[in-house]
Amino acid sequence: MIIDIHGHYTTAPKALEEWRNRQIAGLKDSALAPKVSDLQISDDELRESVEKNQLAKMKERGSDLTIFSPRASFMAHHIGDFNTSSTWTAICNELCYRVSQLFPDNFIGAAMLPQSPGVDPATCIAELERCVKEYGFVAINLNPDPSGGHWTSPSLTDRHWYPIYEKMVEYDIPAMIHVSTSCNACFHTTGAHYINADTTAFMQCLTGDLFKDFPTLKFVIPHGGGAAPYHWGRYRGLAQELKKPLLQEHLLNNIFFDTCVYHQPGIDLLTKVIPVDNVLFASEMIGAVRGIDPETGHYYDDTKRYIEAANLTAEERHKIYEGNARRVYPRLDAALKAKGL
Amino acid sequence: MIIDIHGHYTTAPKALEEWRNRQIAGLKDSALAPKVSDLQISDDELRESVEKNQLAKMKERGSDLTIFSPRASFMAHHIGDFNTSSTWTAICNELCYRVSQLFPDNFIGAAMLPQSPGVDPATCIAELERCVKEYGFVAINLNPDPSGGHWTSPSLTDRHWYPIYEKMVEYDIPAMIHVSTSCNACFHTTGAHYINADTTAFMQCLTGDLFKDFPTLKFVIPHGGGAAPYHWGRYRGLAQELKKPLLQEHLLNNIFFDTCVYHQPGIDLLTKVIPVDNVLFASEMIGAVRGIDPETGHYYDDTKRYIEAANLTAEERHKIYEGNARRVYPRLDAALKAKGL
Repeated sequence: MIIDIHGHYTTAPKALEEWRNRQIAGLKDSALAPKVSDLQISDDELRESVEKNQLAKMKERGSDLTIFSPRASFMAHHIGDFNTSSTWTAICNELCYRVSQLFPDNFIGAAMLPQSPGVDPATCIAELERCVKEYGFVAINLNPDPSGGHWTSPSLTDRHWYPIYEKMVEYDIPAMIHVSTSCNACFHTTGAHYINADTTAFMQCLTGDLFKDFPTLKFVIPHGGGAAPYHWGRYRGLAQELKKPLLQEHLLNNIFFDTCVYHQPGIDLLTKVIPVDNVLFASEMIGAVRGIDPETGHYYDDTKRYIEAANLTAEERHKIYEGNARRVYPRLDAALKAKGL
Repeated sequence: MIIDIHGHYTTAPKALEEWRNRQIAGLKDSALAPKVSDLQISDDELRESVEKNQLAKMKERGSDLTIFSPRASFMAHHIGDFNTSSTWTAICNELCYRVSQLFPDNFIGAAMLPQSPGVDPATCIAELERCVKEYGFVAINLNPDPSGGHWTSPSLTDRHWYPIYEKMVEYDIPAMIHVSTSCNACFHTTGAHYINADTTAFMQCLTGDLFKDFPTLKFVIPHGGGAAPYHWGRYRGLAQELKKPLLQEHLLNNIFFDTCVYHQPGIDLLTKVIPVDNVLFASEMIGAVRGIDPETGHYYDDTKRYIEAANLTAEERHKIYEGNARRVYPRLDAALKAKGL
């Protein structure tokens, strides 16, 4: 079985975006604000939006199951207040849940959280619980910068975030550390802000001692860990100067990297530098980079091709495709086992 | 000849830091503000600070000449106003100049600029001119975020920066794009802010068309280009979606990467993915990562070892060590030629 741990619902029917635009307009003129019930998307529309897109490509490329969460760039936690974020989050999570019910063999949910800049993360717990208990979601996406590129929240190692971590540990769910749209003009969303956030999150964990407080807490750092694997020597050296343990002991029981790196040399470095137990297959398809690479004739985000071509044994490849995901996402493993898989 | 294009004066005599601390104290209580003439550092002190440190390591490792600029983390452009920055910059540049006069075969200067958040970059021109004309400096360090981690300046492709670029073109000097200390608690200075800034600068150039306006402008992106080479497929794909030319044509006549990547797999990726004409030898010694790698028994920042071990021909290695530096820093080439080198 090939599990893609990083897919977003980037192809939702247009009605979703239209509803969101009305919600945003309603922040300035409450007469324009839509009701939740104004959004009507049929099962047929959901089916079509996925069958033609993610599901078609999964079949073409040969992956089986995607951990599916709301579109990252649309989370936009910086818009409005907690209520704005909360309503929008509930809608987006429910749509992912419905997709997972329509295609239970192919999609399982991960929750977006109703974060809002300056608001206590404990306010996210109700939605998190609902997604885990009612929707069977197996993970959350945690935005380390709900301000959208202004970086006004405390470091991920700060007690500020502990209410979320306590629930994650209780439910045994990992968090993918994933920012959303940048509203800072310096940072292109998918070309700078995403990658910077990955690097930043990794370094926050390196300087702190979070995993002493939460030995079973698990973070997945997407996009191949930002710059961390490429600069692994730098990070080993910085840990040494900060009198931290070796990275293996200090971070790698708790931090995992996905394979959203869109060329062969990048995947080769990732799988060479990072222990295979810490690498999880992912493509973020359909996501930031949708084109065909003229150098290979294949989609940039068809990351399975790179894994196939990397210098890995069959056993290592199995870990990357399935074994590690079952270990890092225990609720996914349980859901699969309940189906006899 | 082996030219290290990225060295900072991180080992200046303590008197420099003490003077700076008094300058900072003077911002709150002007009675504490020091005069420039209060700073007295003798040639012997300068000699000792370099002979025992950078010069000793250059000899040990076998590099000949370092492009030497003030300590990056001490630039701290966010402190005080333009006058604060201007006075501090003049002091730091002059010390690098004096080092270059004491060891003319081993050091040649690159200028820090008196940037200040929200201040027109044109105010930096006088110091830039002084460093080039009077000190024989061959480059500048340009801080894309003088706020120190709040990213309040326009993108590097914005006309805001054009006064600097016009002078760079006039004098035929490149800029290393280098931030300073982060005063945003989210970003560790050398582990996150530096690397993020490199990635951000690269993506700013990718989204813009700066080099259409300045076809001969040259940027050196340090620390191996941040995350850019590791995610080269992502950047090729994003350029494609943005309808930009291939990166080779769009950026690689103007953007160069140094080799400050502190492990073998990182240098292997850099030299495989980035055309050899765009890679310049550097170590940033003595800098962010000063320890010995227990996996190799050698200093992390002894990057020459990685270049020696990389899969490169003698001709390619010569380009990385010397040829590219002479091309990208024409005033360095002229200075060497004037000495018959």
